[in-house]
Amino acid sequence: MRKGGAEEEILSLLRTSGEKYLSGEALSKKFKVSRTAIWKHIHSLMDQGYEFESHTNLGYRLQSVPDLLLPAEIENALGTKYVGRELYCFNEIGSTNDMAARLTEKEVPEGTVVTAEKQTAGKGRLGRTWFSPERSGLWFSVILRPKISPYHSPKLTFIAGLSVHDAIKKVTGEDAELKWPNDVMFHGKKLCGILTEMKAEMDIVNYLIIGIGINVNLSKNDLPDSVRGRATSLKIELKRDVQRVKLLAETLKSLEEYYELFKQEGPEPIIRKWKRKCATLGRKVKIHSGSGFVEGIAEDIDGDCALLVRLADGTVKKAVTGDVN
Amino acid sequence: MRKGGAEEEILSLLRTSGEKYLSGEALSKKFKVSRTAIWKHIHSLMDQGYEFESHTNLGYRLQSVPDLLLPAEIENALGTKYVGRELYCFNEIGSTNDMAARLTEKEVPEGTVVTAEKQTAGKGRLGRTWFSPERSGLWFSVILRPKISPYHSPKLTFIAGLSVHDAIKKVTGEDAELKWPNDVMFHGKKLCGILTEMKAEMDIVNYLIIGIGINVNLSKNDLPDSVRGRATSLKIELKRDVQRVKLLAETLKSLEEYYELFKQEGPEPIIRKWKRKCATLGRKVKIHSGSGFVEGIAEDIDGDCALLVRLADGTVKKAVTGDVN
Repeated sequence: MRKGGAEEEILSLLRTSGEKYLSGEALSKKFKVSRTAIWKHIHSLMDQGYEFESHTNLGYRLQSVPDLLLPAEIENALGTKYVGRELYCFNEIGSTNDMAARLTEKEVPEGTVVTAEKQTAGKGRLGRTWFSPERSGLWFSVILRPKISPYHSPKLTFIAGLSVHDAIKKVTGEDAELKWPNDVMFHGKKLCGILTEMKAEMDIVNYLIIGIGINVNLSKNDLPDSVRGRATSLKIELKRDVQRVKLLAETLKSLEEYYELFKQEGPEPIIRKWKRKCATLGRKVKIHSGSGFVEGIAEDIDGDCALLVRLADGTVKKAVTGDVN
Repeated sequence: MRKGGAEEEILSLLRTSGEKYLSGEALSKKFKVSRTAIWKHIHSLMDQGYEFESHTNLGYRLQSVPDLLLPAEIENALGTKYVGRELYCFNEIGSTNDMAARLTEKEVPEGTVVTAEKQTAGKGRLGRTWFSPERSGLWFSVILRPKISPYHSPKLTFIAGLSVHDAIKKVTGEDAELKWPNDVMFHGKKLCGILTEMKAEMDIVNYLIIGIGINVNLSKNDLPDSVRGRATSLKIELKRDVQRVKLLAETLKSLEEYYELFKQEGPEPIIRKWKRKCATLGRKVKIHSGSGFVEGIAEDIDGDCALLVRLADGTVKKAVTGDVN
């Protein structure tokens, strides 16, 4: 689903006219369509969740906009140069990452974003599923084409985590914590998962897809039993709804800013900032990776985004990937 | 193109019967087809380069087999458990790596190999082209699904380089040299290029495609002007033809062995052996990577397959990718 034509323009006009009514006749003249066509567009917008006051003599005015991931709403909130400027918004889809991967075959521009109100086959790391119920979370993917070797790709996951952190701070005023390697936690529970996928040569990444899932307005009952103890949502923690469109727009804005910073100054400022928000350092950790595990104190994050763990025998082990307990 | 049915079996029977003639009648009975059908199969094999002696009373016997990348010939020479056991042999194709990537969508088994007599769009690293003329080189790709993070993927490129080295040694008795990060050199010139591509999450490689191009029987005139000074072939250096099928089979055998070693003992033995065959260490190098370059003495290869370069000021810089001059 891409942003529409006349309907989008009618909405945009009603948005800018604020308290003022716009008559059906004026709209009909402006867009060179019949008054019946205008009426149909208004009703189509109402079906999407927009509310209008209509007055026989005065016309229409916009009363409220829905917190839905609609192109017009996202665009209206967006403060970016290129991230999210090409938007594919779906009501229901298997996985936004899989759709983004298909889009890369058509040479879409860098920064293209895919959103879904609901994922029927949302993906977590390592083949796990990511529960993505309707209209309560943010499930989206960003396509990037950084000119880096795959060796450096974990830095982009750090950028994504930081962006979610900063957006939450801006929208709610609260501080989330980052958990190595790629989770965002809130009050000690998992709030957001990041699944970065790529196609690459040894030397260079062809494209990278950052999939982000944020539990925004899920209620406790929305969370599957299997994760209820470990997962949470902003609504559960803050006891109020959070505007998803605003949170999405702020995340994309931060992401663009950090990505530009990364391209200009390299990974150091990103890693430094990530470490300050990191809940893993200084703690006792057990990292499951492949067949074995590493246990010790999480001491530092190095320049490769790897976790340095001090074992009981005093040696330091470098973990590049794994699940942290 | 996949290995055939009856034709393959007729060939196999003639191969095992050696000097003995097999009558058209016996073959016709054995395979439950008409003698005309047998005759057609024999002629189809002749079109592929097989030579037969035929005798009105005695029947057929196999005289010589072509050095073509035919499934029957490769299978016959193969000494592997799973690498190359699923074979896709093309006469002409765009790129064996691209075809292999398409095959991964159909859940082909690990070790699946794609070969081509000629590539019309052969790929080198970083979007470069790889010149792949007809019937004179080995252009092939191997699909692997190692359970490793993309961070460790350069080790698979090392495995490929070592395999080519060992196969050349077995088939020709000569030692090739390895050039960091992923070339095989012969008498100081480039003989073989390796293009490893993958689809991965941050944690795990989904699949990895190792594309190998070996200049086997190319003559000097076959090499494009642009690379003639820097590239060579086994034929140019050894002044004789080298059996491509044998070289392919030996490469796949070594590759399987090193891959199994890697899975059992990790990267250390691979890196140790690679370093012994490496022509880069101890030399003055200039490594172009992204926007800049690093210049110094190539001092060592570390556990990440990265090149450690000692700069003029005495500091050591780690290069994970780049072109070495």
